[in-house]
Amino acid sequence: MTNKLYFTSNHTKEEQRAFAAIQKEQSVIGYYALPNQDIGAITSYCATLSTEITTIAVIGIGGSSLGAKAVYEFMKPVQELTRKLYFFESTDPINISDLISKLDLSTTHFLIISKSGTTTETISVYKYLYTLQSDPKVYTFITDPGSPLEKYAHSIKASVLHLPDSVGGRFSVLSSVGLVPLALCGIDIEALLLGAKKIKNSFFNDGYLKETLLKKAVYYAKNHAQYNINCIFAYSETLKYFCQWYVQLWGESLGKHQRHSAFHVGLTPIGLIGPKDQHSFLQLIMEGTRDKSVTFIKIEDFHEDIVIPDITLPHLEMLDTLNNLPFSKLINMQCDSVVEALLDQESIPLDTITLQSVTEDNIGALIFYYELLTSLVGELIDVNTYDQPGVEAGKIILKKKLQQR
Amino acid sequence: MTNKLYFTSNHTKEEQRAFAAIQKEQSVIGYYALPNQDIGAITSYCATLSTEITTIAVIGIGGSSLGAKAVYEFMKPVQELTRKLYFFESTDPINISDLISKLDLSTTHFLIISKSGTTTETISVYKYLYTLQSDPKVYTFITDPGSPLEKYAHSIKASVLHLPDSVGGRFSVLSSVGLVPLALCGIDIEALLLGAKKIKNSFFNDGYLKETLLKKAVYYAKNHAQYNINCIFAYSETLKYFCQWYVQLWGESLGKHQRHSAFHVGLTPIGLIGPKDQHSFLQLIMEGTRDKSVTFIKIEDFHEDIVIPDITLPHLEMLDTLNNLPFSKLINMQCDSVVEALLDQESIPLDTITLQSVTEDNIGALIFYYELLTSLVGELIDVNTYDQPGVEAGKIILKKKLQQR
Repeated sequence: MTNKLYFTSNHTKEEQRAFAAIQKEQSVIGYYALPNQDIGAITSYCATLSTEITTIAVIGIGGSSLGAKAVYEFMKPVQELTRKLYFFESTDPINISDLISKLDLSTTHFLIISKSGTTTETISVYKYLYTLQSDPKVYTFITDPGSPLEKYAHSIKASVLHLPDSVGGRFSVLSSVGLVPLALCGIDIEALLLGAKKIKNSFFNDGYLKETLLKKAVYYAKNHAQYNINCIFAYSETLKYFCQWYVQLWGESLGKHQRHSAFHVGLTPIGLIGPKDQHSFLQLIMEGTRDKSVTFIKIEDFHEDIVIPDITLPHLEMLDTLNNLPFSKLINMQCDSVVEALLDQESIPLDTITLQSVTEDNIGALIFYYELLTSLVGELIDVNTYDQPGVEAGKIILKKKLQQR
Repeated sequence: MTNKLYFTSNHTKEEQRAFAAIQKEQSVIGYYALPNQDIGAITSYCATLSTEITTIAVIGIGGSSLGAKAVYEFMKPVQELTRKLYFFESTDPINISDLISKLDLSTTHFLIISKSGTTTETISVYKYLYTLQSDPKVYTFITDPGSPLEKYAHSIKASVLHLPDSVGGRFSVLSSVGLVPLALCGIDIEALLLGAKKIKNSFFNDGYLKETLLKKAVYYAKNHAQYNINCIFAYSETLKYFCQWYVQLWGESLGKHQRHSAFHVGLTPIGLIGPKDQHSFLQLIMEGTRDKSVTFIKIEDFHEDIVIPDITLPHLEMLDTLNNLPFSKLINMQCDSVVEALLDQESIPLDTITLQSVTEDNIGALIFYYELLTSLVGELIDVNTYDQPGVEAGKIILKKKLQQR
């Protein structure tokens, strides 16, 4: 993975301060240690699952599903996976019924994932599934030690796995929350962690990414009032769900009251997919208000070399310049062309990230890169990156409504 | 469909001016007439397709695919459709190969949709498909009269359908571009148009929506510098692709140079799905910068009455308040709770839209409502709502790169 910034930022003091804060944070915030974890317990657990199980269904929402989904959907089109993975992430009755109709209950194993163990959506759907399939052997629970859900799981003698200490939901993809469903589908979680470890080492041990990440974070923080919107423009359909994971990570971490002021601050994440969104959102970036930064993500080698054939269509000869071009080249030329066009404009901060290929290693790297960037920006805009107090009010109102009905 | 605003706006003059401009526009901008069109030619064409064709594949991008996809994905989970619909919307080689592997070429009909007839992505993919399946009978072309693609289609004696006059891509879902693929899958396009017609009549003939739409548009325009982000928060998974359609419509129409100034203006669309995005984006709305308006969309009756069973899980008794609750009630209570929580905050302009149910009529209404709103806001912020000059620069650079390789 490489990252090139097309904007300049020269604030050595802030960079040093942010780096020091993040170094210090490592002892209290759990996600930093995940690339170096021992996955023995996870692989042992996965080996216990019968090969007759062909489908894994995750019952979880937000941080309990978005990370695994991002990696699964990245790898699925390029790799023969050993099991299918479905996600129950809604209380929408149409969605629940539709998903259930796709499952063969006799060959499905369910992962009930909830950090707190009392997530309304997750428990509601679980209760419903339980009426269809009440064998405790087909359920595994992933939750915090001591949660009500763990106690329940023990009461029915179902398997339980834990989240590691101090790992928040949206930073949990490289913990059991993401690794268990992914490993069960045949995704190489060791390679995933290795990719993350490379980024971690590069950042903390003065590697090439340290300066880039610090400059980018300081630029975003310093200019957050003008550039309140941060777009990812990824040139591959495989990164669609990575974008959704990024939206949660960025939005929920950085949209806060400041710790030392009465101000609301926040940076708004947007995920775009190229070339599709050249036909949707690009106009707004190009000619709209100068309130957006854009990070382009490219894949260097798609390992899929289908080529535009060398045929001339009558009346469409002007498009013969496409002939003999591999699609993988075309999509990257499209990306480069848009980058060039935007660089001709004023006041649109751009950078480009290049992944070498569609592998676990690369998505692991990209995930850890964005986690570090989020932590840095959170520190620099003076928010608590790891809580989400704003979602409580709605939950309290719902609880009252439920009691009153 | 109903729409309730929780903010006030009192600018009668601007409302009248915008309404007059839109009334005038009806004679030059084609989409206003679509609800009243004669669909005879479309239904006759659809009847010619053999029942042996079980799959329709749309080769199109942006305005040529997003509308049909929004309606198809809205209806698919609730209705037994007559054919499957796939969309080739990318030059991503992994995506193209993956989609082709899902098709049985002997029972698939392809719709090649391009307004200009020279869209790079569409023609590239078509060329590739042509090497796999060269029978002109399995291709239908939808394009502007006289385009190079039409001439090509005639040269191979394939079917051609036209876009109506002066209908831009992102406003074309209710024209042949959207109606043909939808009708071929068994979606009731008459009901779709009827829904749109109700909104049109309500707006132009002093119905209940006229005042609401005008007030909302004037509010968004007057406050665009503060509220530069407009979120849709839809409480149903069926509206996921509607949100993507909205993003194109809003972003590409309103992100522009002003007509009578040197300013860049624009409003940034964001599509969210509840309750999922309560666990992702809600924190940012609740506590982040006050730069967002939010429109909640609810479905009153899901016609799917699965119920949370009346069972008590040991250690999870606190969640027994959910027992016997239909999921359709729960999801709407979740929506109401978040609306209430946000109304307790300052400076977050909210409104709610309620659709009665998941039917063609309702999605047709919602589509036309958003088209009118876009036209109104475009008029009020002084942009040309219907062009997209900003996407040309990248195309010109790509063309040069292709010639030079």
